[in-house]
Formats: sequence, structure tokens, C-alpha cells
Amino acid sequence: MSVTASGEPLVFLRGQCVPASQAHMRIYDLGIILGATVTEMTRTFRQAPYRLDEHLARLYRSMKVCRFDTGMSFDELRAATLQVVEHNARLLPETAELGIVNFVTAGENTLYAGAAGGGAKMVPTVCVHTFPLVFSLWRDFFTSGAHVVVPSTRHIPPQCLDPKMKYRSRLHWWVADAETHLADPKAISLLLDLDGNITECAGANFLIVRQGVVLSPTTRNILPGISRDVVIELCAELGIPFRERDLQTYDVINADEAFMSTTPYCVGPVTRINGLPIGDGRIGPITQRLLQAWSAKVGVDIVRQILDYPVPA
Amino acid sequence: MSVTASGEPLVFLRGQCVPASQAHMRIYDLGIILGATVTEMTRTFRQAPYRLDEHLARLYRSMKVCRFDTGMSFDELRAATLQVVEHNARLLPETAELGIVNFVTAGENTLYAGAAGGGAKMVPTVCVHTFPLVFSLWRDFFTSGAHVVVPSTRHIPPQCLDPKMKYRSRLHWWVADAETHLADPKAISLLLDLDGNITECAGANFLIVRQGVVLSPTTRNILPGISRDVVIELCAELGIPFRERDLQTYDVINADEAFMSTTPYCVGPVTRINGLPIGDGRIGPITQRLLQAWSAKVGVDIVRQILDYPVPA
Amino acid sequence: MSVTASGEPLVFLRGQCVPASQAHMRIYDLGIILGATVTEMTRTFRQAPYRLDEHLARLYRSMKVCRFDTGMSFDELRAATLQVVEHNARLLPETAELGIVNFVTAGENTLYAGAAGGGAKMVPTVCVHTFPLVFSLWRDFFTSGAHVVVPSTRHIPPQCLDPKMKYRSRLHWWVADAETHLADPKAISLLLDLDGNITECAGANFLIVRQGVVLSPTTRNILPGISRDVVIELCAELGIPFRERDLQTYDVINADEAFMSTTPYCVGPVTRINGLPIGDGRIGPITQRLLQAWSAKVGVDIVRQILDYPVPA
Amino acid sequence: MSVTASGEPLVFLRGQCVPASQAHMRIYDLGIILGATVTEMTRTFRQAPYRLDEHLARLYRSMKVCRFDTGMSFDELRAATLQVVEHNARLLPETAELGIVNFVTAGENTLYAGAAGGGAKMVPTVCVHTFPLVFSLWRDFFTSGAHVVVPSTRHIPPQCLDPKMKYRSRLHWWVADAETHLADPKAISLLLDLDGNITECAGANFLIVRQGVVLSPTTRNILPGISRDVVIELCAELGIPFRERDLQTYDVINADEAFMSTTPYCVGPVTRINGLPIGDGRIGPITQRLLQAWSAKVGVDIVRQILDYPVPA
Amino acid sequence: MSVTASGEPLVFLRGQCVPASQAHMRIYDLGIILGATVTEMTRTFRQAPYRLDEHLARLYRSMKVCRFDTGMSFDELRAATLQVVEHNARLLPETAELGIVNFVTAGENTLYAGAAGGGAKMVPTVCVHTFPLVFSLWRDFFTSGAHVVVPSTRHIPPQCLDPKMKYRSRLHWWVADAETHLADPKAISLLLDLDGNITECAGANFLIVRQGVVLSPTTRNILPGISRDVVIELCAELGIPFRERDLQTYDVINADEAFMSTTPYCVGPVTRINGLPIGDGRIGPITQRLLQAWSAKVGVDIVRQILDYPVPA
Amino acid sequence: MSVTASGEPLVFLRGQCVPASQAHMRIYDLGIILGATVTEMTRTFRQAPYRLDEHLARLYRSMKVCRFDTGMSFDELRAATLQVVEHNARLLPETAELGIVNFVTAGENTLYAGAAGGGAKMVPTVCVHTFPLVFSLWRDFFTSGAHVVVPSTRHIPPQCLDPKMKYRSRLHWWVADAETHLADPKAISLLLDLDGNITECAGANFLIVRQGVVLSPTTRNILPGISRDVVIELCAELGIPFRERDLQTYDVINADEAFMSTTPYCVGPVTRINGLPIGDGRIGPITQRLLQAWSAKVGVDIVRQILDYPVPA
Repeated sequence: MSVTASGEPLVFLRGQCVPASQAHMRIYDLGIILGATVTEMTRTFRQAPYRLDEHLARLYRSMKVCRFDTGMSFDELRAATLQVVEHNARLLPETAELGIVNFVTAGENTLYAGAAGGGAKMVPTVCVHTFPLVFSLWRDFFTSGAHVVVPSTRHIPPQCLDPKMKYRSRLHWWVADAETHLADPKAISLLLDLDGNITECAGANFLIVRQGVVLSPTTRNILPGISRDVVIELCAELGIPFRERDLQTYDVINADEAFMSTTPYCVGPVTRINGLPIGDGRIGPITQRLLQAWSAKVGVDIVRQILDYPVPA
Repeated sequence: MSVTASGEPLVFLRGQCVPASQAHMRIYDLGIILGATVTEMTRTFRQAPYRLDEHLARLYRSMKVCRFDTGMSFDELRAATLQVVEHNARLLPETAELGIVNFVTAGENTLYAGAAGGGAKMVPTVCVHTFPLVFSLWRDFFTSGAHVVVPSTRHIPPQCLDPKMKYRSRLHWWVADAETHLADPKAISLLLDLDGNITECAGANFLIVRQGVVLSPTTRNILPGISRDVVIELCAELGIPFRERDLQTYDVINADEAFMSTTPYCVGPVTRINGLPIGDGRIGPITQRLLQAWSAKVGVDIVRQILDYPVPA
Repeated sequence: MSVTASGEPLVFLRGQCVPASQAHMRIYDLGIILGATVTEMTRTFRQAPYRLDEHLARLYRSMKVCRFDTGMSFDELRAATLQVVEHNARLLPETAELGIVNFVTAGENTLYAGAAGGGAKMVPTVCVHTFPLVFSLWRDFFTSGAHVVVPSTRHIPPQCLDPKMKYRSRLHWWVADAETHLADPKAISLLLDLDGNITECAGANFLIVRQGVVLSPTTRNILPGISRDVVIELCAELGIPFRERDLQTYDVINADEAFMSTTPYCVGPVTRINGLPIGDGRIGPITQRLLQAWSAKVGVDIVRQILDYPVPA
Repeated sequence: MSVTASGEPLVFLRGQCVPASQAHMRIYDLGIILGATVTEMTRTFRQAPYRLDEHLARLYRSMKVCRFDTGMSFDELRAATLQVVEHNARLLPETAELGIVNFVTAGENTLYAGAAGGGAKMVPTVCVHTFPLVFSLWRDFFTSGAHVVVPSTRHIPPQCLDPKMKYRSRLHWWVADAETHLADPKAISLLLDLDGNITECAGANFLIVRQGVVLSPTTRNILPGISRDVVIELCAELGIPFRERDLQTYDVINADEAFMSTTPYCVGPVTRINGLPIGDGRIGPITQRLLQAWSAKVGVDIVRQILDYPVPA
Repeated sequence: MSVTASGEPLVFLRGQCVPASQAHMRIYDLGIILGATVTEMTRTFRQAPYRLDEHLARLYRSMKVCRFDTGMSFDELRAATLQVVEHNARLLPETAELGIVNFVTAGENTLYAGAAGGGAKMVPTVCVHTFPLVFSLWRDFFTSGAHVVVPSTRHIPPQCLDPKMKYRSRLHWWVADAETHLADPKAISLLLDLDGNITECAGANFLIVRQGVVLSPTTRNILPGISRDVVIELCAELGIPFRERDLQTYDVINADEAFMSTTPYCVGPVTRINGLPIGDGRIGPITQRLLQAWSAKVGVDIVRQILDYPVPA
Repeated sequence: MSVTASGEPLVFLRGQCVPASQAHMRIYDLGIILGATVTEMTRTFRQAPYRLDEHLARLYRSMKVCRFDTGMSFDELRAATLQVVEHNARLLPETAELGIVNFVTAGENTLYAGAAGGGAKMVPTVCVHTFPLVFSLWRDFFTSGAHVVVPSTRHIPPQCLDPKMKYRSRLHWWVADAETHLADPKAISLLLDLDGNITECAGANFLIVRQGVVLSPTTRNILPGISRDVVIELCAELGIPFRERDLQTYDVINADEAFMSTTPYCVGPVTRINGLPIGDGRIGPITQRLLQAWSAKVGVDIVRQILDYPVPA
């Protein structure tokens, strides 16, 4: 792997590390043409990638379903990822954390690109890039809690695209968000499946707490999140029962607590749904215990990190 | 609109015409991150765009659903498109025809791109590019006819993403094609909707002929293709009845003829489904009449143009 | 039928005309206990009931499905209705119009009412009452047009309760409206069926206009409204094509015009959906032609009647 | 709360206790107009309300989903309920038991009621009433067992109205019962959901016993009954495994036992489905154990109370 | 084709004509093992097969979907059929009519039959047999009309088995009939599809008449019956509008008339559904016109033939 | 029960044992006409029937749903089955094993059979027959593992025909197999339900292994196989967790192992799905442990028996 050293962040793209300002995709890439892309997002704690292997393992599962053959082994992709992170972290203040994005597309459509014959086997486009986590974006979640709204747009069912893949053909999220934002411009979309069951938020799993039990939709219609896995582990460690079952809007409205689990901010308290308070409308005690336990596990006060982050001017 | 003259094809991208080799997208574009892209593909006949206005009108309908506000009027986009076509056509032999692609994404995710605050309104990315139509790719359709295969993957239902938008979040097509190609590496996927009705092929409408009547799925679960509109017009002119109705695999297996309608090759004969011949397994007479009438309308022998196109070495 | 004369409006209830202030239902009525009620609403033009027979015929169809045997013939119910209207109209200024409500419940639950044995056959509760149409409520529809919003709650499917019956078990409308009003407190809910097709608004059919054609959902999932029947007749008289087909949110967003058809205000212009303008966002020409033609048919300027109605203090 | 003393039962209605004979609802109440009503039914044992708090808590959950704001706290409603029960119980023989009904509607439609302006915020109608339990109605269940029949009408799915609310928009039950009674006028309807899974009976949960395990549908498509909760508790106490899962008609036909759980008669044995015997067609041993354990818990022989109740002449 | 002359009816089976008493199938035939059978039933008028070619054409369409390759051409099967009919008709009185059954199974499972290797290609089993039409079975339909009942069992959807094939894997009809016969032992099952739309009766299409229009379910979920085709022709000849659309139970309950179309008795009046009368509960005028026109077309008084047929002792 | 001694295998059919060569069904049997047949297949180990009682118990459950009243008690059918097995086993080499088939049809259609009146109650046709297990057919499963392919045809849903019955109306399997064999003539069809969940293979349950846990679809949409029950028992004995849950194609593609459980070969390793390797593409360790444990339980080396079986010439 050739590397071009740089004072700016590096991006690993199509087998090379290039400065971020030169990290481009051709408009003929099937990631652009077809949304034929699978992806992962990992974050750092103290600038070290957190559960990178789990993220990459899921990426390889997604690629298997899509039959993307990158020619890169798990270890090679892991090494490239670490190299990018290591380089890019050095460019940031010590307190900064990184979001690490891996994505793989089906490759370039040579026909669009002007190639004569077409028939050449497509080589997937592999990319690794990072960005600093802007914690101030999620500050409100940790003061008043997030507001979720259920739009009329439904989540894509597994027989079309399996949500267990972290894929990027998600224009429906964009359309759903527009509906959601009619009710509240800051609200987060919570999508139902075709049968009216709760699925997930864009980029976050959604869980509720009822009578001391953490309840999650089943993996039939959600991404089995790595952060959700951490929640499951923490529940086990804290003696909090965790169960999967089909949940409906009623269950959320009448839950004691609700939260999102997600890579960038781990556990995001949710205190309202469709304008109604969940429980007493405040961040719940089990949500807080999960945040504390997670913080202890990683040696970073997750909430403090978010609340202390300066709001950009 | 500033233009950079060039000996190579131009691409209109984010308000500027740039040489194709410099037409890049940032990896932070929501077209890449989310598949949040709507598109159109127009072709030329004798190097003049065919039904460009209809294509652009549909693009604006798709953008309205997605609430993409490009700041470009229909006329401005039309002018930019024609300028790109005019320039690029000059670089090709007279006999060549162009595929013209318009696409619009939700814009760049400034967060990923390293912007501090996030909150800035996203500006959609507008792009116009062209490529020469490689007619040899479809030659077999006009000699022996295409083979369609029905995979287990289903088309995305309208309550998730409406197929009346020409959108690019279509990873399911990629997955479906992999299934289809198990049966025949050259076969084309014909997707069912969730109820088992025929929908469409990737990039082409699918129609059948039964007892002299052309039958099409309804617009509930397909793109209302511009080429399909031409077929409807031609049917009216030729006195061939045209009807929309829910069709199932049975109907295709027992059709007299079948064909695709699509921008690049107009009417593509289909002679087999799931390994079974349709009708007598040969290109049908109504399919041929439609091709002839279309050729007459545009002053180009569509079939000849395809068959005479040199196969790339 | 015994009648109690009164200076206040009369209500026909359980075989008798009683003053409105004494028109009560027992809390044991199955209309209250189970929502086991079918109904009709008719309006007057110049204080004469409009298409009363069609409304009552539909009521009898609904009763047949529910097996309500009132013991009243069509003619008897018609006579009782006309008697109530005649009396009540006399109490109003000449320019007032009446809403006339017929409803029939499954009758009283004698068990709840304290009867010992239960087993007695239930006698349906038949009621006729009127109220003055408060036209000012709909004034905005005729100045800026109504705003419809699609909530996540779906319409009840025919295999549960057939929408061709005008029934009153409609708590889902109440829940849906709460969602809708998050987006806009004045917006009207437009419900989808379980497959994502447009159905109807509470108490109004919903129709669109596209390229000069009036399009309506099919009667699979809507009430075949009497006012919608008038629209069909007017379309025939005006040479405007009318067609039934499954419509999706996309179709409404990209319609040229949209309107509701409903008893109280006949044709209610709709100019926005989910915050987006329909067509140019103004009341459309075909909508206006329908209002004019209807006005001519009934000898009342429908729009003027609404706009001139005093807004209550 | 003002109370009008009375020799007849009292009803709490719209903030007042009134004699039952004067407990009326206006025909303009949305409970009547729209079926916009949530409800609970509690029974007494030895004239003391049983699990009243659980019932009222569920009522408040239903009200939250419907956004009914009664202005009455849980404690106030509880107090009003107890007051009504206390008074009404005194009017009955010592051996009698009461059914206690709480219901709340969306309030009165002031428009129908003749109010000029409409816009006033609706105040929900709150009602508490009682009736003596006529145990003879269920005698057959405890001698030969009930017969359930599966009609073609399906239960309303959660995405329309969530069955976890005890709501009264249930005309579909009326229509379903008419179908069921074609097969057997004494049979009880057992409704399927849209996918063909067993849901519940009108006013009763439905459970089966297979190989010593009590099986119940999941709360996705049923009311989580308070009596069903008691069954779950009793199972735990008796060491009988209890599990939730999707059940189909096949499971009931081939169950060892079946029973309903419901407020008025607690556990109602079911011995036939669609004319076929369940198990050996007799009341099963686990059903009997549950009845005995429940009787012991409440100090009332539930079966004896039913069998000894005089059949009204 | 070898023929064994006989005083008893002949059956064509596996390439030979054999006496009916020797027409056996091996228990290893996939028609028995798997229900892998497609079929047709044709009747005679004046002992001449009626629309045999249409029936055989549909049989070949069914075989194509199932990929049964009998090795017999259409003409060969037609000839074999006519030979069987000719022979068998001679054994009956002149006034008798024949039911002619063609069926084709997937062939014999050689493994079950004890063959060592399995792998041999299966040869479909082709059979032609006849039976005398026992018209007395349907007499009641022509005096008081048939009673249809809608059971809870649903028709198999096209994505499992397309109803446009006349196939014999129909155990669900048997189960459905048992439900139907709980309501009325003489009633005929009318099955709904999974969405609650009317489909068909076992062996008969189901149509209704509303306001002078004959309405039929669409061919999405029914067999496009040959007798139904005759009804369509007769409607055209008589100036009766015919339309296909999704129909629900409501439509049947509120139809003016209803009837079945089917090979053995052509048009069977239906006068009740779920115990409710259709129209006035008597055989309708359009039903009668169709029967008269059909009778005229074939030179046989269809109703008289049925009513005059002696009831077997 | 009369028995005709024979040097050839006996078949029990309609109350008699007859030589296999004379074991015929009349073409009028509803097993043939309607696929109205339920069945079981039992195998022997060391020529003794394995879990015959469980198989027959399930047969009686299926018969109850279908209301087949054979007039034979469980013990009588068991005795007849054992008699057939005992006789037929003696005709085979000691190392041979038998497949034992029990099937019951709805009986003969007397109308087709020429009976005058019809009305006679149908007597179900009961049959018991055997065949030698040709183990060589499955040899490949135990060397390289089976390949499963998911066709577009879906499994019949429980509300049409419950898969918990082992019924023979399974033409859809035949059609599905034709699709599957386009991809690989040796592949086995793995059908999805209407929601895209994995169901089963024809004649075999399908299970996967993930992280040491054996996962199976739920009994909502599969046959609860007797061999699957053995797997559950073996898992318990071996300390391998076993769980039921909805599984999708994704789960199979990313499973560690997969296998079928089925009567003839007990546990059939599956190593590929849709052309993709499962796990490392080789027979998995848990699959092997199950085979070993099962072998130990029955005293027969199941794999050896299969691999050593001579391939027929």
C-alpha cells in the first residue's frame, strides 16, 4: 500500500492513501449510480478505534451478501484502517475523537466511464476515511433528551434489502426525515416496518425500558448494531434483563424510558415520541446507568465529553 | 455558468462544466453516503437529445418528492444539459449516439467533510454527463432476444420508496442480479413486488403481448418510463390496444411476446423467462412493429444501428 | 310516530321525536359500548335535503352488512327524517343550511342496563338529528386551500371493516389526527391503506387532477361518497375524464390539483400535502369548474355561501 | 365531586354522580360519533374491586395514546370509582358481584351540539358505572365448555388501532359475531390477525395448553389482559410454564386444552373450535387448576359462584 | 394409440385406452405424492364437447408453467380426448351429457416405486376420463339459488401457486368447505384472497351484478374460466356491461344478483351469502338472461335439462 | 384385516394388504383430484421403525384438521403399519433400511366414479407402503454438502394451508424446484414465506448454526419435524443451545453451518446457498456432532451407511 504523506488527513481509496482534499470518487462509481455501497462507522475512545474488529466483521458479512470481492483480506483492511486513523489522529487535539468510515462500493461502471466493451469484471471501490466527532451536535440529547417522530414512510423490508447489512441505499430515510421535520425540525425519524413494528432510527438502534427490562426490536428488521451489542453486554453485567420482541408505537408511548444506541454517542436518551413524553419526559435511570457503565468500560466520561465539547460559532 | 473548454468530454458538476477526467464527487456527498440521488437518462437520435423535456420534467417531480432545491430552474438545467451534449457530441463520430445522464444528490454532508457546525443547509449536487452508447452490448437482444429471470429479491414497495421516482438507492438490484446470474450470467432480472406481481427490469419497463394487446404493470409499482410512454403512443398510432394491469409470472410464461422499453435501445425483445420460451421463443411481430414505427418516428433504424455497431475487441 | 312539538330542534330517537335537549343515549347503548353504529350525513341546499335517498340507501346497505334490523322501512325512515328537517329548518334563518345526521346503533346492551337475563333480541337505536352548517369552519379551504398530511396511522382494511360502510368505529382517525396536527394544527389527515395507497380523509373523499383527468382511489379502500358520485356526474357533464386507480403519496405531490368531496362543503380545494404545494399551490381550475357546475346544479353559489358566512365571535 | 344520593345505582358522569336512570350521553359525544372511547371493566370479589389499580393504569395508558386529557388524576378517578362501587354495592344482595365500567370518550362535538364556533378544546367525557354480574350467562362454559369459531373477519392490526388499548371502536366484532353465529348461535368469535395468527375473543384473551405448557399469542396483536396477567402469576405459582408465541388455528385444534381469561368469569374453559373437540372435548385439568388457584387467591369459589347463580326466568 | 374395446367406459391413461375399472394410478405417482397435477374439465352439449380446444389450450398453459413435457402434441391429446368421449357417450342414453376430465401429473416417483437409481427423467402421467353429469346435484341452484359462505381459510396467492393454472393441490378447499358447512351443510365456499378480496368458488368463478353491470374479480387471483369467457361473450352480445375489479364481501352482500360460472351447469344462480339474501333473495333477471342466451347458443335448455334430470333414488 | 401373502412387498390399502404391484388408486380419489391427502414418512434403523408413534400422532393431528374420519384407531393403524414393515423388510437384505409411508386421502369422489347420487359420505383412503432407502441419492450431502437455492416461489402461508400438517398439496414445490434447478440442477429449494423469512426445504427442515447456537425458523411457517425434534433432543443432550426465530437469507449466507433435518438421512449438511459458501464451505463441526450423537443413539453409523451404500449402475 503506497502512502502519500500529508499535513492534511489521509483517505484510503482504491488501494492508496491520498490527502483528503484529493479523495474523490468518479461519478461512474456504482456507489453513486446505484447506491451499491456497504459501510461501517467506528469511533475512537481516546483516539483508539473501539470494536473495530466487530465493525469490520460486519462489513465482511455485508460484502458477502453483495458478493463484493475486494481482493483485500480482513487483516489488510484492518491495517489500512489503523494506518489512516493513526495518521489522522495526530492532526487533531488530544481530546478529539474520530469517526472512522469504511465503505465499499460495487466499483466503477466502465461503460459510463467510456470504456468500449463493458464486460470487464468490476473491482469494488474500498475507502477508509475519518472525521472529527462534533459532539456538540448531540448535546441536546444529553440535556433534554431526543424527540423521535414516526413518519408515514416505512423501512425497507428484508426481502428487498436486509437491514442486517449496513448499506447506503437509503433515500427512504431522507424522504422520511422530511416528513418528520414537519412535526419538529430537530426530531429524529423512527421508522415502522410494513407491519407497523418499530424498527430503528437512521444510524441508531432504538430501545425502550419497561418495568426494568430493556426491550429491543428483533433482528428481523433492524441492523444488529455493535453499540446495541455493547448495551446487551452492559445489561448482562448490570443485571438488567434484555429482551427482543416486536414493539409498536404504543409500547414506546407507554415505555418508562427510551434510548438510541449508536456508534458516535453510544447511548442517546430519548424523552419524547410524537410530541408525547416518554415516562416522566426526563432521561431515565437505566439509560443513565448504561451511560455510566459504558463510560467506565472505556475510561471516558461519555456524557461529559459531549457536554463539554465547544459549540462551534 | 462558467465553462472550461476541453478536448475531452465535459461534465456539468456543481454549477460548472469541467473536463470529464476532473469530474469527481467528494466522498462526503449524500449521493454516496445515503444513495440520496435522483436521476434521468436520455439518449440522442442523430445526436439530438430525445424527449429531454419529458426526462427533465420527471427529474423535477422526483426532486419535489425528495425536497431537493437545486436553485436551478428547469430552463437552466435544460440549457446546461444541451451545452454538455453539444460539446461532447462534437468529440464523437457522426454515427455515435450519446447517453445523457442528469443526476441530483442531496448535497455534501459538511460534517463528514470536516465542517465544524453541521447545521448549514445542504445544497444539492447537480451533475450532467454523457457517454457514448455501446450498442453492441444489446446486440443479442435483437438476434435471439433477452432472457429474463425472476429472483427471490423483491422490488422496494412504494410506501418505502416510490418507483415513480427514478432514484439510485437500488442496491437490491445488485443483489437480485447476483441471484439471476446463477441461472444465466446473461439474464436480466425481472423483479416481483411484495404481492408477487411483475414490476420492472433494472432500467427498463417490462411489457407483454397477449392476443394482440400490449399489457403493462400499473404505475403503482413501476417507473412510468418515457420510453414506455412512446410505446403507448406508438400503440395508439398503430391501433394496438394497450392496457395496464397486475401481471404475474404466469402471464409472462404464457404471453405471446414480451419486450422491455428503455432509453438506450428503445424496445428490447425478450424471448425467454426462467428458461422457458415466450410464445415461440422468437422476437414477436408486435415487438417488431413497434421497433419499426419508432425507427420511422426518429428517422433512425434502431435495430440496424445496434446490429451494425462494431463489437469492441 | 308520536311527536313532541317544541320551540327547540327536534331529534328523532328510538321511534319518537323529542326536543334536542332531551335527546340522550343510555350509556349502555352498543353505539357507545362497541362503536357499533352506522351513519349518514346529508346536507340541505336552500333548506331542502340533497340526495337524501342516496344517503338513506347507503345507510340501508351498511345496516345489511351489520344485520341491524330496525323494523323501519326505507320510507318510514325517510318520512321521519323529512319531518325532523322540516321542523328544525323553521327555527333557523332562511339562509341557514342544515346538516342532517341519521345513525343506527346495534341497540342497548340490556345486561349492562341491569336486565336480568340478557338474551332478549337487541333492537337497534335509530336517530335523526340536525345541526346548522357552520360554513366559516371551511372558509380557509376556499381562500388558500386545505393542507393534507399523511400520518403513520393507516386506514382500517376492508377485511376488518369495509370502508364502503359509513361506520363510526373510527378511533383511528382520532389518533391519526393527533399525528397530523404535530405537523400543522389545521391540517387534515389523509390516510394510507396497508399497502401505502391513498384512501380518504375523515368524512371526505380525496381526489386529484392530473393532465386534465380527475383521479380517485378505487372503492376497495374508500367510502363511495355521494358527493363523489356528484363529482363523477359533473365530470361526465363537463367532459372531464374521471378514473379510479390506486394512487400513492407521489401522485398527490405531483398532481396538478387536489380536492376533497364531501357532504358539507361539496368540493374542498386542497393545495398542500406534507408541506409541499400541489401544482402551483393555488386552487385549481378544474376544482373551480366543479364548484361552479355544482353551484349551478343546486342553485346555490357554494363558495359564496361559505365565504359570506359570518365568522363566529 | 358533587353527589346526588339515590336509592338507585349511581353513575359518575362528567364530574358528577347521578342516578343511573339519568345517566345519559348526548348524541353529539365523540364516543357515539366516532367510537372515540377507551374503557376498562373491573369486577369485584366479595364486592371489593379486583385489581382496580391495574385496570386504571391501563386506562391511563390508553388515554395517553389517544391524548385524552381528562383533567382527573389517577387518584381522583380511583376515588370516584370506589365511591360509585361502594354506593351501588349496598343496593345489591351480599352475594352479588359488580362489573365496574370506566370509560372515557374524546368529549362532545360542540359543532353538532349547535355551538357556533367549533374551536373550543374538547373535554373528554369520563364515566364510571356498575352492573351486577349475571353469572348464569356463562354457566355453560363451566359445564360443557365454550365453543369458539373463527370467522372470516379479521382483527384490526396495530398500525390502525393498537389492541393494547382497550378501545371501543369495535364494530368489526359485531360483524364477526354474525358470521360466527351462522355456525353456532352460542359460539364465541375467535379472530385471526391479517397473517392468520390467533388473536383474541371479544372481551377475553384466548390461551391454549399443549404438553403442560400454557401458550398465549404475543402482545403484538392482543390486549395484555389483567386477567391474563393473573393467569401468568398463577402459572408461576403452580409451576406451569407460560409462553407467548404466534399461534394458528391448527394449534388450537390440536391443543390439549383451551380457555379464555377475562374479567367477569376469570378463566372460561373452551372445549370446541369450529365444531371440533379440543383435546378430549372436556374441561382440561390445567384449566381447572387455574380456576382453583384463582379461587383460593380471592377467597371465592369462582366456578361455584357461577353454577349456583340462579338462571333468570 | 392402442385401444382396448369395452362395454364399459374407456379411460385414456399413460398412452392407452383401458376400461374404467382398470384405470388405476400407482400410489407412487406425483399426482398422489405431491398433488403435482394440472387438469381441465369440459362438458358436452348434446354429447359434443363444448369448447374443448379452449380447455386444452389452458391445460397446455398450465403444463408450461409446471414444465410437464408429456410428449403429446395438442392435436394428439385432442384426438385421444375425442376418442374417449365418442366411445363413452355411446354407452349412455341420448339425453345424458358427459363431464370430460383431462389431467396430467408430474409422473411416477421411481424411487418410491422401488427403482434403484432415481435419476431417470419423469414422464408425466396423462389421463382422460369421463363421467355422466348428474344434473340433479345442482337442482336447488335453479329453484332457490345457491348459498355461498365465506370461511376463514384463504385462497392460495399467485406467488405460491397461480390460480390461472387449473391445478389440483387444493387441500385448502377441503378445509375451507368444512368451515363453510358449519354454517350450512349445503353452502358453497367463497374464498377471499389474503387482502380480503373475493376470489372464486371451488370449480366455479363467482360474479355479481350491480346496477346492470356484471362484475368479476380480476384474473390476479382467480382462474380465468372458460365458462366465464362465455359469460363475457354473452354480455357483449346482450349489451350487458362486464367489468373486472377487486370485490369484497360487502359488494356481494349488496349486489343485485350473483352467480357462478362453471363448466357443468354453466351459470349457477346464487341468492344468499353468509345467510343474507342477495338482492331480493331470488334468482336475478340478468342471471336468467345469461342462462337463456347460453341455452340458445348451444341449442339446449340448460335449466330445463337440470330440472328435468331425475333425482337418483 | 385380511392379508394376501406375497413374495413381493405388501401395501396396506383401503383396509387390505395387497401386493405392491396391485396397489392402485382409482383416478377418482380425492387424493388425486384435489391433493386432499395427509401423509407421514418414517424410516427404519436396523429395520425397526424409528419414532413411528410420533409420526402417526402427527398424522392424526393432520387428519383432525382435515376432518378425515378413517374409522381406524391409532392402534389399528400402528398395527397395520408394523405388519407391512415386518413383511416387506423380510424381502430385503439385512443391511437395507425402509422408508415407510402412511397416507390418508379424503376418499373417492363417487360422482366421478359414476355413482348416481353423490351424497354418500366419503370414506378416507388409508394407505401404508414401504420402499428401500436408496442412500446413494444423498451421498453428496455427506461429502461436499448440499447446495440450497432460494427461488421466487413462496411457501404457502398458514392461513391457506398450515405447514404443521404434512399435506401433499404441494405443486408449488414442483414449480419452485424448476426455478432452483436453473441455478444448479442438483440444488435443493429453500422457500421463503410471504414476508421473506426462511421456511423449509421440501421434505426437510432447515437449520443453521451461529456462534455455537442452533437456530431454526419458528413453527409458524414450517412443519415441526420429528427429525427436528430429535435434533432438539440431541442439542439438549450435547449442551448445544437451540433457539427458534425468524431467519432471513442473510442469516443463512452468514451462518457458520447449516443443515437439513429429515427422516431419510437424519441430518443433511448444507454448505452452500445461492452459490455462496456457508461458513468455510465445509461440513461443520456441530453438524458432525449431531450426526455422531444420533448415530450413537440408534446404533447405526448414519454417515457410513450412506457413504457405503452402492451407487446403482
